[in-house]
Order: sequence, then C-alpha cells, then structure tokens
Amino acid sequence: MSSKNCYQLWGGCFEESASAVLRRLNDSLDVDSRLFREDIQGSRAWAQELHRSNHLTDETYEAIIQGLTKVEQDIEKELSENGRLLDGEEDIHSVVECRLRKYSGDAALHLHTARSRNDQSATDTRLWMSSSAQHLRKELIQLIKVLVNRAEKEIDIIAPGYTHLQRAQPVRWSHFLLSYAWSLKDDVSRLDDQQNRLSTCPLGSGAIAGCALPIDRHRLADSLGFKNVTPNSMFAVGSRDHIVEFLNWVALCGLHLSRLSEDLIIYSSQEFGFVQISDKFSTGSSLMPQKRNPDGLELIRGAASVLLGDSFSFSCTLKGLPSTYNKDLQVDKELLFKSHDRLLNCLKVMSGTLDTMEVNGDKAVKLLEPGMLATDLAHALVRKGVPFRKAHHIVGTVLRRASALGVDLKNLPYHEYVEI
Amino acid sequence: MSSKNCYQLWGGCFEESASAVLRRLNDSLDVDSRLFREDIQGSRAWAQELHRSNHLTDETYEAIIQGLTKVEQDIEKELSENGRLLDGEEDIHSVVECRLRKYSGDAALHLHTARSRNDQSATDTRLWMSSSAQHLRKELIQLIKVLVNRAEKEIDIIAPGYTHLQRAQPVRWSHFLLSYAWSLKDDVSRLDDQQNRLSTCPLGSGAIAGCALPIDRHRLADSLGFKNVTPNSMFAVGSRDHIVEFLNWVALCGLHLSRLSEDLIIYSSQEFGFVQISDKFSTGSSLMPQKRNPDGLELIRGAASVLLGDSFSFSCTLKGLPSTYNKDLQVDKELLFKSHDRLLNCLKVMSGTLDTMEVNGDKAVKLLEPGMLATDLAHALVRKGVPFRKAHHIVGTVLRRASALGVDLKNLPYHEYVEI
Amino acid sequence: MSSKNCYQLWGGCFEESASAVLRRLNDSLDVDSRLFREDIQGSRAWAQELHRSNHLTDETYEAIIQGLTKVEQDIEKELSENGRLLDGEEDIHSVVECRLRKYSGDAALHLHTARSRNDQSATDTRLWMSSSAQHLRKELIQLIKVLVNRAEKEIDIIAPGYTHLQRAQPVRWSHFLLSYAWSLKDDVSRLDDQQNRLSTCPLGSGAIAGCALPIDRHRLADSLGFKNVTPNSMFAVGSRDHIVEFLNWVALCGLHLSRLSEDLIIYSSQEFGFVQISDKFSTGSSLMPQKRNPDGLELIRGAASVLLGDSFSFSCTLKGLPSTYNKDLQVDKELLFKSHDRLLNCLKVMSGTLDTMEVNGDKAVKLLEPGMLATDLAHALVRKGVPFRKAHHIVGTVLRRASALGVDLKNLPYHEYVEI
Amino acid sequence: MSSKNCYQLWGGCFEESASAVLRRLNDSLDVDSRLFREDIQGSRAWAQELHRSNHLTDETYEAIIQGLTKVEQDIEKELSENGRLLDGEEDIHSVVECRLRKYSGDAALHLHTARSRNDQSATDTRLWMSSSAQHLRKELIQLIKVLVNRAEKEIDIIAPGYTHLQRAQPVRWSHFLLSYAWSLKDDVSRLDDQQNRLSTCPLGSGAIAGCALPIDRHRLADSLGFKNVTPNSMFAVGSRDHIVEFLNWVALCGLHLSRLSEDLIIYSSQEFGFVQISDKFSTGSSLMPQKRNPDGLELIRGAASVLLGDSFSFSCTLKGLPSTYNKDLQVDKELLFKSHDRLLNCLKVMSGTLDTMEVNGDKAVKLLEPGMLATDLAHALVRKGVPFRKAHHIVGTVLRRASALGVDLKNLPYHEYVEI
Repeated sequence: MSSKNCYQLWGGCFEESASAVLRRLNDSLDVDSRLFREDIQGSRAWAQELHRSNHLTDETYEAIIQGLTKVEQDIEKELSENGRLLDGEEDIHSVVECRLRKYSGDAALHLHTARSRNDQSATDTRLWMSSSAQHLRKELIQLIKVLVNRAEKEIDIIAPGYTHLQRAQPVRWSHFLLSYAWSLKDDVSRLDDQQNRLSTCPLGSGAIAGCALPIDRHRLADSLGFKNVTPNSMFAVGSRDHIVEFLNWVALCGLHLSRLSEDLIIYSSQEFGFVQISDKFSTGSSLMPQKRNPDGLELIRGAASVLLGDSFSFSCTLKGLPSTYNKDLQVDKELLFKSHDRLLNCLKVMSGTLDTMEVNGDKAVKLLEPGMLATDLAHALVRKGVPFRKAHHIVGTVLRRASALGVDLKNLPYHEYVEI
Repeated sequence: MSSKNCYQLWGGCFEESASAVLRRLNDSLDVDSRLFREDIQGSRAWAQELHRSNHLTDETYEAIIQGLTKVEQDIEKELSENGRLLDGEEDIHSVVECRLRKYSGDAALHLHTARSRNDQSATDTRLWMSSSAQHLRKELIQLIKVLVNRAEKEIDIIAPGYTHLQRAQPVRWSHFLLSYAWSLKDDVSRLDDQQNRLSTCPLGSGAIAGCALPIDRHRLADSLGFKNVTPNSMFAVGSRDHIVEFLNWVALCGLHLSRLSEDLIIYSSQEFGFVQISDKFSTGSSLMPQKRNPDGLELIRGAASVLLGDSFSFSCTLKGLPSTYNKDLQVDKELLFKSHDRLLNCLKVMSGTLDTMEVNGDKAVKLLEPGMLATDLAHALVRKGVPFRKAHHIVGTVLRRASALGVDLKNLPYHEYVEI
Repeated sequence: MSSKNCYQLWGGCFEESASAVLRRLNDSLDVDSRLFREDIQGSRAWAQELHRSNHLTDETYEAIIQGLTKVEQDIEKELSENGRLLDGEEDIHSVVECRLRKYSGDAALHLHTARSRNDQSATDTRLWMSSSAQHLRKELIQLIKVLVNRAEKEIDIIAPGYTHLQRAQPVRWSHFLLSYAWSLKDDVSRLDDQQNRLSTCPLGSGAIAGCALPIDRHRLADSLGFKNVTPNSMFAVGSRDHIVEFLNWVALCGLHLSRLSEDLIIYSSQEFGFVQISDKFSTGSSLMPQKRNPDGLELIRGAASVLLGDSFSFSCTLKGLPSTYNKDLQVDKELLFKSHDRLLNCLKVMSGTLDTMEVNGDKAVKLLEPGMLATDLAHALVRKGVPFRKAHHIVGTVLRRASALGVDLKNLPYHEYVEI
Repeated sequence: MSSKNCYQLWGGCFEESASAVLRRLNDSLDVDSRLFREDIQGSRAWAQELHRSNHLTDETYEAIIQGLTKVEQDIEKELSENGRLLDGEEDIHSVVECRLRKYSGDAALHLHTARSRNDQSATDTRLWMSSSAQHLRKELIQLIKVLVNRAEKEIDIIAPGYTHLQRAQPVRWSHFLLSYAWSLKDDVSRLDDQQNRLSTCPLGSGAIAGCALPIDRHRLADSLGFKNVTPNSMFAVGSRDHIVEFLNWVALCGLHLSRLSEDLIIYSSQEFGFVQISDKFSTGSSLMPQKRNPDGLELIRGAASVLLGDSFSFSCTLKGLPSTYNKDLQVDKELLFKSHDRLLNCLKVMSGTLDTMEVNGDKAVKLLEPGMLATDLAHALVRKGVPFRKAHHIVGTVLRRASALGVDLKNLPYHEYVEI
C-alpha cells in the first residue's frame, strides 16, 4: 500500500493542504523576527571571521557587509510600519539570507559557510538575552529606588507588622518597604550570577560536530562581545540551560512582585485602609466613588502565575529530550520573549503604583493596639532577670486579667505587674 | 507628603506615562476581540430578555438589535482586513457598546441595564468554549479514524512490542495503533463529560449580587443555547472551573500526542527504521538525503509541555485567590485561546503525519527474534501442567543454553527441551 | 576494556554497593505495601478465574485461596504493629507471592500463570482508587453539609460582598457560603464522571500482548467489581490516564479550598474581624491573647500548591514517554497516595474549621456603607425609565456631591435626587 | 448561635476529634526531626551569644550547654533505633526545648530569650542546606569524573552524532560524554553561586521585628559559620528564596540526568545496540535473557519530573502569599528533603550506571554511513573556492546520483565529482 493512496483516501477530510498545517506549527518568523538585529550582528561577525581566516575574499566580504546593512534597514522599516514581516520564509535566518542575495548577489552564497542554523540561532538568542537582561536589571533597580525613596520619606510612619495576617508587633512602615527592596536586590545578584554562563559564544559549533574550517573562535566571540566560547559543540547546540535559568529567575522575581501586590491589595481594602492606590494605577467606578479596584496589582499577582507556568513549560520540554538539537526546542524564543515582556511590564506597573500610592500614617497607627507591645513587656522582665519562658507566662496572665477587667495594658498599673 | 510630589520626584525616570504602562498590562482587546461574535450574540439575547421582561420598549429594542447587526458586520470586516481592531477601548465589550451608540443612538445606553462586565464576559467565554470544544472533538475523531483506517489496512503487519524500549513480545502493528485510538476515545468521553457543567449560563448574575431587575434567567439561558443557569451569582462571576477542566483536558490530550510522537520518532530513526515519515511532515536536507527530520512530531512533543505549563499557569492563578471577580482572572482567555489553537494544530499535524507515513512491514518483522517467543514457550509448558514459575525457570535455562551454543531457540531440538 | 575494570577503578569512590544504590531508587515496598489488600483481592480473583477456566486444579486453587487468607492476616498484623513490612522483596506483589509459598507450597508457583506484574499492578491501583474516591466523596459531601447548615442558620446575616477585595454590594453571608458549596458540588459531579473510565479491569492484559491462556475477562472483571474490561492490552499496561484525571481533580478541589481559606483568613484578620476561627483550628499565643493564627487554613492554602505540583509531576512524567510500561510510571502510587491523604486531611480540617468558627453578624453589618447601595439606586432610576448608562452617571454625580458635603447617601434628601 | 452548639450538632459526623485532624496536617516532627543537629547547633550558638551579651549568667549558660549535648545524644540514639521520635510535641524545636528542661532544669527556660521559632527554624534550614549542598556537589563531581574517565579511555570510539534522533555526523563517543560533563560542570557553578546568598544568618530577627535585646549578630553568625547576617528582619523570617533557588537548581540538574538517561535508554535498545547497561543497573528477565530493562535510567528520567513538580509546588506556595511568616511555608522542609534525597540517589545511580555499562565501538562504527560525510565533502569544495550554498547543492546532486546508481559515496569516483 502506498502512502499516497492512503492519503488520498483520507485527504478529502482535511480542510487544508498538509504543508499548510505543518507550517502553522513550524514557522517561527512571527516570533523570531524580533531577533533580526542579533541575526545580522551575528552574520556580520561571522563574515568578518571567515574573512580574517581567509575563507572569504575581500570582495565577497565587502559585498556581504554592505548587503547586511541594507537588509537591516529594510527589515527595521517594515517592522515599524507593519508590525510583522510578510516574507514567505519560515524564520528570520532564512529571511536575512534570502534578502541578502538581492543586495549582495552571489557573495551571499558564501555567508553560511561552515555555519549551521543550530549555532546561528543559539548565538542570536544569547545576544538578545544579554542586552535584555540589562534592560530588566535597570528596571529592577528603578523599582528598588522607588522603595528606598518611600522608605526614607516615610521613616516615621508606624504600622502593624503582620504574621499570619494577624497583627503581631508594631514596625516602621519603611521596614516593610525595605523587606521587599532586599528581596529585589537579591534578584539583581541572581541575575548577575547568570551573565558569565550566558556570555558564552556557541557560534562555530556547526550543526553538532564543530566548525569544518579553521577559524579563531575566541576572536569571533570577542567581536560579538562574548566573554568566552562554548567548550563542546554538542552541548552548544543542544543546551538551553541559560534559558531555564533565566525563566526561573523571571518566575522568582514575579513571585516577589506577587507577594508585594497581595500585601498592598489587602492594605488598600477599606478595612485595612492605610494605603490608597492612585487613580492612575487603579480603576474607579463612576457609580461607586469609594471603589478603587487595584487592577494593576491584581494583574501583577496573576502574571506571576503565568511566568511560573511558562518556566515550567520550558523545563518540561527538556525532560527526557535526546541530546543536541531537536525541534521541540524551537519554543524557547516564544516563552523567552513573552516572559521578558510580561515581567518588564509588571516591574513598570509596580514602580508606578508604589510611587504614586498614598500611605495614611494616622490610619496605620490607629490599627496598633496595646496587646502588640506584650512581647516588649516580656523582654523588659527578662532584662530584670526573669527567665524568658516565665516572663512570657506572666505577661500572658497580665493580659488575660486586663482583658477580664475590660481595660487594656496601658491603663493598668504597669510597674505593679512587673513586680509580680 | 503628597503622592504627586513623590511622583514628580521619580517621574523623570519613567520612560512613559503611568497610564500607558498600566494599559499595556491591562488592555485585553487584542486577545478578546476574538469573542466579538459571542459578545454580540450575548448582547442580542440580553436585549431580548430585557424586552420580554418589559425593561425595554419595542423601539429601543429594535434599535439595539439592528445596531448590533451592523456592529458585527463592521468588526468582522476590520478583523479580516487588519487582523486586529484599532479602537481605543480596553476590551471587546466596550468596543461593541461604544460602536453601538453610533448606529443605535441613545437606545444603546439601555443595553447594559442590570448587566455587568463580570457576567457578560463569563457568558461570552462559555459560548465560545461550547463551540470550540465541538471543533476539537471533530478533529479528534478525525485522528481516531486515521488510526483505525491504518490499523485495518495494516492488520497483517507484525512488529516488536516494546516495554522499557526493549523488545518484549511480537504484536500486530494495528494493536499498537489502536492502543492510541483507545486513549483518544477516552479523551472524547472526558470532553463530553464537561459539557453539562460548561453549558450553564451566568448571564443575569450582575457584578456579584445577582440581577437587579426581574427577568427570566431560564428563558434567557435557553435563547443562548445553554442547558441551565448558574445557581449562585458569586460562584457565577468568580468561578473559572470549566476553564481549569478544559485546560487540564487539553494537556492530557497533548500528552497522548507526545507519547505517540515519541514512538514514531524512535521508530523512524534509521536504527529502528520501520516507519518513514512523509516528505510533507518532515524536513529533509539537500545535503543528506538520508536525513528526514521528524519536525512535526517533535513540535507536537514540545507543544505538550507548553499545554501542560499553560494549564498549570491558570490553576496557579486561582491558588489562594479571594472569591468572586479579581482582575487576575483576565488571563483566562489568553491561555484558553492559545491552548485551543495549539492543540488544534497538533491534532491536524498528527492526523496528516499518520495518514501519510509509510510503514515497512518487512523491516518490522526482521526485528523480531526467537527470544521474543520465550513467553509463549513457557505458556506451552503451563498448558502441559508445569507450574508457571517452574516453566519460567525452564525456558530461561533453555535460552541460556541456546545462547551458549550460539544458536537461537528455533534451531534447537524444540520438543526435546519441552520434555525436560 | 571491561566494565568491571572500569568499575573497580572508580568503585573505590562509591560509598556503597551498586545494587544498594539502585535499590533505594527502585524499591517501592514502603509505598505499595498499602495495596496489600487489593493485591490479595486481585490474586484471589485471578486464581478463581484460572480455576474456572481449567488452568488450575481444584487442589491447587484451594491451597492458593487458603494461603492468601493467611498472608493477608499476617501482613495486616505486621503493618499495624510496625507501620511497615520488613521483607527483602522490592514490592508488595513479590512479598505476597513469596509469603504464599510458605502457606501454599508449590501451589503458589501456579498463581502467576499468564499474569504479569504490569497488569497486576495496574489492577491493584484501580481497585484502591475506586474505594478511595468514594471515601473522598463522602468527606466532600460532609463539607458541603457543613456549609449548607451554616447558610441555613445564618441566613439573616448581611455582609459586604467583595470584588477585587473592595466592598461592592451587600450580600447575604449565606450566599457567600453557598457559592463554595456549589463549587464543591461540581467537584462531586466531576469525580462521578471519572468512575466509568476508572472501573475498567486491566487484569488479563499480560505484560503487553494480552493473556496467553483462554480466560473470560468479563467474568474476571465482574468478580472484582469492575464495570468493564480494558479494550487493548498495550493501552491497559501503559495508560495512567485515570491517575492524571484523579490528580487533576484533587488539584482543582484543593484550589477551591485554598480560595475559601484565603477569604476566611482575611475575614478573620482584626481589620475585617467578622469571622473568628475557633481555638481548635487556630493557634493562640499566651503572650498575645488577641492573636489567633489561622494555621489550619494556611496549611490548606499551602497544600493546594503541593496538590497542584504533584499533579503536574505526574503529567510531566508522561510527557514524551514511549508507549506501554516504562519504569518511570512507578512513581504513580507515591503521588497518588500522597495527594489522596493530603486532600483528605484538608477536607477534614476545612469541615472542622467551618463548623466551629464564629461569625459576628453585628460586625459584618457595620462594614456596609451607603455607597454600596449605589447600584440599587441606579436601578431604581432605570425602573423609572432612565437609560442605564445615564442613571449610572446621575448616581455618580450624587455620590460625588454627597462626598463633597461630607454626608453619606442616607443623609441626603433621597427622593429629591431621584427626581433629577 | 454559639459555635459550640453548632459543633455538637455536626460533631457526631466527624470521625475524630478536631484537634487530631488539625494536628495531622500541622505536626511536622516526622519531617523536621531531621534537623535536630542543626537545631541544637543553633541553640548552642544562641546561648553563647546571650551569654557573651550578658543576658545569661555563667551558671545558666553552662547548664544549657551541657543539657544540649545530652539531648543531642538521646535524639541521635532514638532516631537510629526507631527511625522516628515518639515525642508528643509538634516540631523538633519544641522537642529539644522540652527535653532540655529534663537535663538543665529552670536554666532551660532562658534559652528562648529574644528568639522566635520563625528565626530559629529559618536558621536551622539554612545550616542544613549549606552542608547538604556540599554533599550534592561532591556527588556531582564524582559523576563528572566518571564521564571524563570514560571519555579518556574511549577516545577512539566513533559513533553517529544524532540531531532529531536522525544520524547527522560522525562524532567521537567521548565528545558525546563530555557534552554532559560540561552541563554538569555548569550545575556546579550554579550551585556555587547560591552559597553567598544562602550563607546569611537570620538568627536574631525575632518573629518579625528584630531582636529585643542587644546582641552582636555578626559574631553570632560567625560562630555558626555564616558569612553574613540577613539585613531585614521581615525579609529574614518570610523569605524562602534560597529554597526556591535550590529547588530550581535541583530540577535543572535532574533535567540533565533525564536527557542523558533518554540517550542511553535509546542507545541500549537492541536496534541501536552499542551501549549495554550492566546487570547491576538493569533488571534482566530469566525468561528473556536478551531483555535488560534499563530500570535505573527510567527511574532517573521519571524522577526529573517529580523534582520539577516539587520545585513548582514550592514556588506556587509563594504566589500571592502575604509577606513575613505564614504557615503555608511549613511545607518547605518536606519538599527540600525529598528533592535533595531524590537527586542524591539519581546522581549515584547515574554514576554507577555510567561506570559499569559497556560500549561496543564496533557496533557504533557500523552505524555510520557514507552519507554522514556529505557535510565534510561540501566543505572540501568550499576550501577549493566554491560558495557554500553551491557546494551544498553539488553534494546533494552527487548523493542523489549515487543513490540512483545504488552505490554509496565511497564507491564513486570521488575526485571526478569534486571537479564538477
């Protein structure tokens, strides 16, 4: 039985041609056209290295370099006008090479010498990630600054410190703000840790078995701003660990934002009421002027889930995957771009929300109650020599007696109890 | 300290206005414009119910209905031309209502009577899901048919049955194909089970506290094709359980496709070699004509991870979320549409791949070896009264002796051993 | 180079023998000893079917049946005394068969005739799941009853209904409670839907290729209480879809409990304050008598995350797995038992918490504010013929004017405004 | 209505007392008894710091220190004998303090001075993680050594290099082995990066608001081997970022092992057949001596899924959690210990499997085919000045012609074609 007959038999049931179906799953141009600059940057460096290693004549090299500049200008223009490229090619690498032919003629046929899409694509992605990580880093530091600035200005505001969402001990409001600033500072440190592993150039690894022609990979890496070269060609084309690291990092950063969002959503409820989100970062209701939905914060809280799920998606893709390149890996860029953009937006909305919200110190201080000082009272006893567990017991008794008399700690003859 | 000063202080560092930042996270029109038909269908039914319940005059009702038809035509046209709507409104509900004013004048102001975006959006989504589930169901049945058809035609092909990817026992190739058909048949059954819960109309639940005017919710639900009405308004606007169910279902269906992909990828390696993916569903290489990368199957295997991660994303969104509507829920449609489309493409690519691949029965049968019949030999002994564990032991001894003699089971004096 | 030399070379670095290392990862007895009853039940039915199909003599059959009863008694006793079995075998199937030899002698060697551990283990698990699902179902209905009972008793309590955690409209407290009861009722419905697929007997499927001897699989299934038999032996030993379904179900049920927990944790903060968790389901502090940490609810909220993660662990295991049995599947029971137990505990703690907490209707009603009736005011206008969008606008104006005058809606000449 | 009546009404339905239900979810002793050494180490350092800061007399301090040593000995003995502690307390912290009273009398009442379980537990966990990370690191390096050793010994073996599981280009077998060694070396680097953040001492942070008595936190941290102190008390008790980092790391390391497992499972199938897993790390079958199930590798591949799911469980726990300590966080140690143990076992099984497997270089080289040298042929042309894309085309033509003639590349007049 020939497969052709088989296909005809059932082919009538398909609504579209086989290739159209596969192409919709396969084509990545709408996603990876975002890498056009990096692809051209990588191609420029590759041509330069081939030239320096005497695999390209001066003439061919010049033609390629000049052609690439024109291709870059064209793509930039079309993307800014249409939002997408209309080329029939499946990915950005093919688009660039195909368009290059128009400007560079047969010289373009030399560009892909000893290069494979496997190492080319891996290089493009690392280039993009290197600069994008710095963009996110800058935005993160901006957010930390907003927190530190508020902490400094609002250093005198005292608010309840909660554990289990129950009032525990009074704390400075600034102490609360800075607890998040420290979390985010560690995020910066974690991001920095990744850069050495990220800044490793896979170009020159070929499809799997390395570069077929003698080139100087260190010089090539250097010309692209990489600190180092990947040490093994199979590892270079098959590993996506830097993307796993990055997506995990994005997810953790998102978790920090989600916890801060949760706190602020609760503090800006009418019942807590000592935080008021500004009009700019909430939606009011013309019907209920008292209603100020903290939409931005809720969107951030929700986004944390998606960042986490996207990170899971990619790790799951790697589970049990044979080594080197498999097409499953193509999803890397979709998840990378989405996660990057989502986190970037969340960081900006959080900075704006924190910067423009109002904190009502009077309301915050009214939520404090004498019972919250019980721990301090116990430690006063400890300083007088009472063992801690005994002091703890005494203060508990005092509080229960006060509660029974209907007065609070302040209105009881304080020192008298301490003598007990 | 006014928040305004605070903002000005830091505002200089922001690259764009606050509202633009929030809007990028908040606006959902690019996603939910896909619901325009359902939104208009729901609005039509709502206007009809308000009219039947005497909350709209005949005149107002007519104006709304006629306006909605024109709005639908406009949006359809613009979407097919531009791929997206260019309105400034944040979501499709606002776009429809805003455009309606143009065609229906002040009558449009009556449409949202006693309705909230919470119940409106929930209704639109359920309508969309009801028809989309049927679309997926049809595609799934198509895939089952392809499997059953091949099984019928290739009933005589015998291939190794593997466990642990080690040859275990010979099986009919059709038995292998049908093992997946049965999995997919259960997917159909699981999808059907969801329909009763899905076909429940939330319209008339208001923002949280129900409908402020007397209407007949059952009549309304019926006019939209729903089997029932949601029984509690807080549940109606806050529950997304039908979406969790659906995403979990999509993920499980994706897992089935990923396992089938894995089998076929392995069977179409040169080493196994009894399956050949057609040109249409693989990418060849002009350099290496022997190379036929099973890209479609690898993309499906990878897609299963993303379907799973997206399902996780949404469940995680619900974790610890306060009841009723919170803006976190807005991500539901993004995940729903993406998962639906991805699975639909995977089902089509799998149908096409299975329909067009070639199976080489001669190669398959050559992979069988006499050792694979050991289990049958043991059972022959059992039929002669030998306890199973003893028969198992005897056959093991036979095989080791054969192996030592360098012959296989077939070339040994068979009955002689059985007597032992 | 022989592997032996290689091992010796490096073997000195290993702290323990190779087999001990593998066994720690491989042995499942500590997990699957929990299935001893089902394993013996399955073995009894298998022996009975072999006997009825004339593959076992009366004598052998009797010896097996009597031996199984004694093995069951022994294991039950040891488990209740030591909490675990100390046998050297790797799993419960081997333990039962090995112990059977002691009581039934050589008859025991006949028990495994035509059966494989693949179909045996799959059968045990389905038997366990069938009864465990009913146990969870009962507990779930108990929780629904607690909700319905409170709703009935507290029908007169009015509380704020929140959206976005902002006060939206007044609702009956019972309406809130019942919104969760409806969610849980759907959980019951979803669980019931799974039973038909679950109640399918894989016994008789062998390792992969079906049963080597003629037996009546329907009669066998019936004797074990199954409704049906699995239709394909490769599907039967390799599919774990019923476990995926169940774990997804557990995760969704956990999400419902996590949302309810979140609501109650917030409502029992001092700031909201209209719910008080009982001493039995919270931890107080002798230092701060006002502090009542809602530990039970927080543990439930956290448990929802683990239930979700465990569900995704198992789905991820299936991603890209070759068909039929692979050892990766062994983790199914660990995840199944853990998820079952965790959910069961959560359901009980939730029932107890809900049943014993106190709701303070006076405090709840004090949180209502006139602004929350704005929607009703707008609808009063609508009933007088004002288009909704206009009514919405009017009420907004009224509220802003009231706010400017420092009075609330109640203290304004109500009807006067309505005339406007 | 009193909650008591309510409870009695429904209490009859509960099978056990409320407190028993909650305790089963709440008690963590079975999990955290594993931290007994760290808890006592932390308590010793705390007593020492209180003493040095003049909050404890010499006498009290001595009594505490001597008592702690005895408590440590007792617990060690009981754990090694029974596998668990039988104390009625809920966690290891309570057990230690309670037992201390027996040996140290009233002096024990001073130990908890100015300390809270929040900072105590956080400290214990970080201490445990610091040493456990080193244990894993050592095991990882052992695995790398096994890979490097094999690579060195088997440097002359040539095998097919696969992409898309299709033969691509010949590679050295050692190149394959080292591609994983490099992955794992990066795992070491990632683990090292975490240590600075991990080695930060939270002790002295109290429940939330810091230490109530003047102590020297840097001296305290130093005495416990920490490099630094946590900078903010709210951050210190509420952050679990180091655990997220660690679990993500474990998951990524597990993914590497799962990919290597997949490769080896496929290479040890009869069809590929150039790798043979040793008896020690596979299960044979006395029935089918040719069958050698790679159970260890399959268990590792499956374990990767659970490591991933457990990592996501914990991240999901943090999603939207209010700041500081909430009881949800208690699950941290369960997930931490499980993941650590699972990875440790996987690393050992992988080392043992790799060290003892046999690689058949003859079989590997037979899988090579002339077509795999097509890329090299093309580059030979390039070196002669043919543009790459043209060379690619020429070689493709050559191959098709050879294929048509039924010969392979080697058996064609090689140089003749090159001239073309």
